[in-house]
Amino acid sequence: MKPIRNLIVLAAIVLAGLVTTYAEDPLPSWNDTAPKRSIVSFVEKVTKEGSPDFVPPAERIATFDNDGTLWAEQPLYFQFLFALDRVRVLAPDHPEWKSQEPFASLLRGDLKGALAGGERAMVEIVMATHAGMTTEDFEKIVKEWVATSKHPKLQRSYTECVYQPMIELLAYLRANGFKTFIVSGGGIEFMRPWVEKVYGIPPEQVVGSSIKTKFELRDGKPVLMRLPEVNFIDDKDGKPVGINEHIGQRPIAAFGNSDGDLQMLQWTAAGSGSRFCLFVHHTDAKREWAYDRESHIGKLDKGLDEAAAKGWTVVDMKDDWKRIFAFEK
Amino acid sequence: MKPIRNLIVLAAIVLAGLVTTYAEDPLPSWNDTAPKRSIVSFVEKVTKEGSPDFVPPAERIATFDNDGTLWAEQPLYFQFLFALDRVRVLAPDHPEWKSQEPFASLLRGDLKGALAGGERAMVEIVMATHAGMTTEDFEKIVKEWVATSKHPKLQRSYTECVYQPMIELLAYLRANGFKTFIVSGGGIEFMRPWVEKVYGIPPEQVVGSSIKTKFELRDGKPVLMRLPEVNFIDDKDGKPVGINEHIGQRPIAAFGNSDGDLQMLQWTAAGSGSRFCLFVHHTDAKREWAYDRESHIGKLDKGLDEAAAKGWTVVDMKDDWKRIFAFEK
Repeated sequence: MKPIRNLIVLAAIVLAGLVTTYAEDPLPSWNDTAPKRSIVSFVEKVTKEGSPDFVPPAERIATFDNDGTLWAEQPLYFQFLFALDRVRVLAPDHPEWKSQEPFASLLRGDLKGALAGGERAMVEIVMATHAGMTTEDFEKIVKEWVATSKHPKLQRSYTECVYQPMIELLAYLRANGFKTFIVSGGGIEFMRPWVEKVYGIPPEQVVGSSIKTKFELRDGKPVLMRLPEVNFIDDKDGKPVGINEHIGQRPIAAFGNSDGDLQMLQWTAAGSGSRFCLFVHHTDAKREWAYDRESHIGKLDKGLDEAAAKGWTVVDMKDDWKRIFAFEK
Repeated sequence: MKPIRNLIVLAAIVLAGLVTTYAEDPLPSWNDTAPKRSIVSFVEKVTKEGSPDFVPPAERIATFDNDGTLWAEQPLYFQFLFALDRVRVLAPDHPEWKSQEPFASLLRGDLKGALAGGERAMVEIVMATHAGMTTEDFEKIVKEWVATSKHPKLQRSYTECVYQPMIELLAYLRANGFKTFIVSGGGIEFMRPWVEKVYGIPPEQVVGSSIKTKFELRDGKPVLMRLPEVNFIDDKDGKPVGINEHIGQRPIAAFGNSDGDLQMLQWTAAGSGSRFCLFVHHTDAKREWAYDRESHIGKLDKGLDEAAAKGWTVVDMKDDWKRIFAFEK
């Protein structure tokens, strides 16, 4: 070989080395602590052909809770903040709400009073704002809200309030042949309009709670009308049911942050072969919020105990995440 | 160029031509009649970048009915033949069935008598054979039945009674960036154990009818129990509802064979941009079965009229399919 050719080859090797080094940190927003190491170790062993832990790509199913796991959930679930905004928008068409609970309290700005009615009050607020239109119209309403609303404390659009380490984790899993699914207590139709752009998860890989819909021909045009009737609650015991119904195979990895995700993690862990279960633990009152066993939102109590007993991974947001939101300095 | 080089180039061009010609017939079991031409024309226009009809891959959703569209459905839906087989297997554990309809008639071989009870009798037979076990156990039962049973008339395993032209069509669409889904009135858990191997469709891309399931811990082990209660009927008006729930976007192509698929085709056709709707019309009494407007199974009546009115594609199985089953000579 001529010397100049040797130089080119050498340069190519060095460059390839640099590229490899760069590609070797697919999780730059994670500190080099136990959770990151356990994730990488799991992915490496299930993707290594010939290894006893190898899992074929078709079975590399990973499920993620949304509220509190992929994006924030304080001071209230964002979908509920959406519903409150919708009550204000719709109020002029509903003069009766001025004297009808839970709407009267809500419109006076008294959230606590509105929620005094418990689950029944919440269902009424959700149905008044989520039903009575076609699926297409609801999609437009959600898209517009997401595009124009801001989180009351963080003063960022809601889709910026997503956890950068989890975005990296989703991409890392997909780069390793995983299919990533959302399995959330949130509304399936509330998530689908924006999750593909934000998380890279297509509509058919979203599992969530739903209300019933009805097929109708309106002036010969087929529509699906959203009815004020619960169809499915994708929370707690409902998560394995929703996974089975939508995905039809058991995940090998599951990610959550609250007791509402515990059954999903139990179901995932109980399969044969290598399994990975992780809870995101909200411990950072400065950069995000700190809450767990006593919280009214995203309560993590039994889950913390079971994670400890079973050796599941628990992310301490304060210690394990270099940054939480992409907009941080 | 030297003459020898010219020869090599010429040979390469000829070879490339041969390869192209071969690759140009992805539908060898289809005669070169109108349906095949309309399929190829549709696929070419929606996949041609820059064309006004171009559809990005993420939106190339194609939905297929199963019974009568991808596999046969005569003399009875195969899942019902499965249920009848299961009644015979389970009868020793149910002495009460000897005097209890519809089981008593069934066990005497009197199918007509058993079905005299109408829908109620059918639901009883389905629940007695499809509920009361875990999802894992049901999967095993289906797999074993599929592996060991034969179609009463064709004397082939049920998974050989699939339409070869449709298998080619599924592969052709996927090769062109489509995501293929089953949307069937059949049981979602009855299809998932075998459709990936037979149709190349993974479990999460199967939409079907279902019974309710319940998450339970049995001796600390999580299971999903199948309950004798209808969850969802994925037929007629239910098909667009099931599509919306599972897929979350409207198909651009839909394939069916009966009035039970009509709403799915209407829903598909009503979207904007290029759309493709197709009915398989059972016209070949010799190679398969011939039935339509008056049939008790797979009735195609309103659908035929609407297809004619709207210019949808109708496959005449006798004239348009070179062969129906792969096992044909």
